[in-house]
Amino acid sequence: MHIVAVGGSDAGISAALRARELDPSAEVTVVVADAYPNFSICGIPYYLSGEVGHWSNLAHRTHADLEATGMRLRLDTLATGIDVDGRRLALRESDGTETTLGYDELVVGTGALPVRPPIAGLDPLGAADGVHVLHSMDDTFALERSLDRIRPATALIVGAGYVGLEMAEGLTTRGIAVTQVEMLPEVLPTVDPELGALVHAELDRHGVTVHTGSTVTRVGRGDAGLHVEGAGPDGEPLAWDVDLVLVVVGVRPDADLLVAAGARTGPRGAVVVDETMATGLPHVWAAGDCVVTHHRQLGVTYLPLGTTAHKQGRVAGENALGGAARFAGSLGTQVVKVFDLVAARTGLREHEATAAGFTPVSATATPDDHKAYYPGAQPITIRVTGDVGTGLLLGAQLVGARGTETAKRVDTYATALFHGMTVDGFSELDLSYTPPLGSPWDATQLATQAWARLSRR
Amino acid sequence: MHIVAVGGSDAGISAALRARELDPSAEVTVVVADAYPNFSICGIPYYLSGEVGHWSNLAHRTHADLEATGMRLRLDTLATGIDVDGRRLALRESDGTETTLGYDELVVGTGALPVRPPIAGLDPLGAADGVHVLHSMDDTFALERSLDRIRPATALIVGAGYVGLEMAEGLTTRGIAVTQVEMLPEVLPTVDPELGALVHAELDRHGVTVHTGSTVTRVGRGDAGLHVEGAGPDGEPLAWDVDLVLVVVGVRPDADLLVAAGARTGPRGAVVVDETMATGLPHVWAAGDCVVTHHRQLGVTYLPLGTTAHKQGRVAGENALGGAARFAGSLGTQVVKVFDLVAARTGLREHEATAAGFTPVSATATPDDHKAYYPGAQPITIRVTGDVGTGLLLGAQLVGARGTETAKRVDTYATALFHGMTVDGFSELDLSYTPPLGSPWDATQLATQAWARLSRR
Repeated sequence: MHIVAVGGSDAGISAALRARELDPSAEVTVVVADAYPNFSICGIPYYLSGEVGHWSNLAHRTHADLEATGMRLRLDTLATGIDVDGRRLALRESDGTETTLGYDELVVGTGALPVRPPIAGLDPLGAADGVHVLHSMDDTFALERSLDRIRPATALIVGAGYVGLEMAEGLTTRGIAVTQVEMLPEVLPTVDPELGALVHAELDRHGVTVHTGSTVTRVGRGDAGLHVEGAGPDGEPLAWDVDLVLVVVGVRPDADLLVAAGARTGPRGAVVVDETMATGLPHVWAAGDCVVTHHRQLGVTYLPLGTTAHKQGRVAGENALGGAARFAGSLGTQVVKVFDLVAARTGLREHEATAAGFTPVSATATPDDHKAYYPGAQPITIRVTGDVGTGLLLGAQLVGARGTETAKRVDTYATALFHGMTVDGFSELDLSYTPPLGSPWDATQLATQAWARLSRR
Repeated sequence: MHIVAVGGSDAGISAALRARELDPSAEVTVVVADAYPNFSICGIPYYLSGEVGHWSNLAHRTHADLEATGMRLRLDTLATGIDVDGRRLALRESDGTETTLGYDELVVGTGALPVRPPIAGLDPLGAADGVHVLHSMDDTFALERSLDRIRPATALIVGAGYVGLEMAEGLTTRGIAVTQVEMLPEVLPTVDPELGALVHAELDRHGVTVHTGSTVTRVGRGDAGLHVEGAGPDGEPLAWDVDLVLVVVGVRPDADLLVAAGARTGPRGAVVVDETMATGLPHVWAAGDCVVTHHRQLGVTYLPLGTTAHKQGRVAGENALGGAARFAGSLGTQVVKVFDLVAARTGLREHEATAAGFTPVSATATPDDHKAYYPGAQPITIRVTGDVGTGLLLGAQLVGARGTETAKRVDTYATALFHGMTVDGFSELDLSYTPPLGSPWDATQLATQAWARLSRR
């Protein structure tokens, strides 16, 4: 049995690890487009901020760790085609050599590519001009070289999603004056604007200049550095002269390899797989950011996350060996740290719930993370969404200071959602309490009780 | 409808609050033996340590807050008897006046009393001698007066459970040299000794002198202060001269009022109630530390915890109004902070699981709280217990540094246990991840995966 995985990031490596774990006799090869297998893409902002000593520390496992599991790695090797009937993968090595690799089962985890938004003048610009995207280790090294070469005093970040916010913090930490431009009405648009506003205030507090409801329309070389033009919420012209531009407005699935082999695509152009991670092409499995996401509440969608890629990859690796694993589905659980604030969410927000056929109501509460009499108590803003018809818990969004255990409080909601609990039922959970770290009804339960009071009215 | 609650702590107040919340027309009276309704007993160590400014801050709600809900409080009033047939409660007021109070429905939450262990010489000693127990606000004030009067340089604490450990920290914080004596082989006996040893080391690190496997056999007045004698693990004699002795070896149900009225008792002498909090006596409900605990895995047991008392009280209050609420059951979820360490548990340990008919296996893992490349990562010791036959998750114990979100990570396990998940199924949970606060498989999942690897072998 020879299993070949394409992709050295979360999905491909997880599949390979799982296969080796379950069957140490299985031959497993991972084809990696670059030289950086199993790197933590989510850690890149912390390397660029200067908080991670050496880029090699970003590896979840070293090359030696990976080979010690018995898998074989083919680095700097691009998969260019799949001969589905012949079960052969076409490869191009870094020196241009074309070759093929036979497989019994194939797991494709080609991941995603950064979206380049339609900004006039953007296409011809690149790293040499101080204009960057950020997704791979090569992108990271390119940006690092620009930071070293240009020594920017100012930077403009297009986008205020997770990566944009982390990079706003990271570049600020390096002493760079950051301007951040977000098209939507509030930063961190994956949470409700009421909670995003708390993150916005945290950016303000740390000196980031934030423009929401604003677009970047043009970028070009200026007299010294880059000249950027845009439009504010009322269409008023905006202009900035900066030393560096970073475009981080999301990703799209890198599905070309699978599509060329005949795979079907679904939401956002991601490859359709079932819950076993089967593509429908014989002996071809796929996982991670290149495939659709089964969401426990929404059905088939596209929601690329590292946690999901790990789970999908693990399922694909098991099934490539003949297993019967199923991906249990995502709840879109996410968390981000922005300076001293932590913002998290799981499940559905109102507009998503409405689209999914629910009748959602949301309530916001601000319970303290622990008993107020014990020093250091801080409020966590918690917005609970539930269905008024069934009483089902639909989702939760939380924003709290670092140290309030907000990142793991969202997990309690995620676990409750996994099991389809009602908002009222959430109060039955036996959660931990000690005055320095909680309250007899945990903050998460005080928030669901606030929802219950609101929905009774 | 007149609902009377006996007891001003968690259970009685929760019942009263719930009744007033659900039916603002209900007349609700709470009979409180002392002058301190709705005080946070769990907060007492933090008042005595000096961390809480004023004792009145320990109130979950002020007297005015409580009365604003529409309940009536009868403070300094002892319930001395229940006329079940006549639905009248006999009361003794602080001036000795005997009176009665009629009710339609009665909720009894008389709580627990501190256990006085069989130590020779203990009985005649009390606060005037610098010998203390610690359970009520009156106990708190008595100990505070001793601290002010004696200005102890040294103290001996009998017991190293939750309160004993918190008081070891609290008295150390006050600059008192603490000796702690625990009968069982390791401190914090509610977790496995392997994890208790980590707490023991934390006590050592902060200068507490700990004697485990040791007993206190005699206490008496010495030349200056108190002379305490005991025996070490091999029966060797031990002796200490100290300024203060604190005896905190657990509690027993305060069931006299209900027993005299005809209620049945179960484990540890606690009053038997069903899951609706009915005592079997007509129109008499009971909740909190005076009643048995329905445990989701163990059935009927006795496990007094504030979180449970809140839930049981809420159920009793709803049912006193004619509702049909049921206490969903405890999982024994607990957490304690000891200096800079947090120890938590939920569900069963091996010996409990064996007694309940399972075939338990446990695995200990020490995953980092967050990605090691981000500064400040610290290991959390996690011991997962599962059933080898069914694969069911049975329990988890965690010890981690403050700041590792250990207190709320135990809640993820508690929520999974509530729903009867398997250890393998736990990996399917969609938990949050960002490098400064977690890992793509959360620490909790890395621990269950370690269990799965062990149990496959």
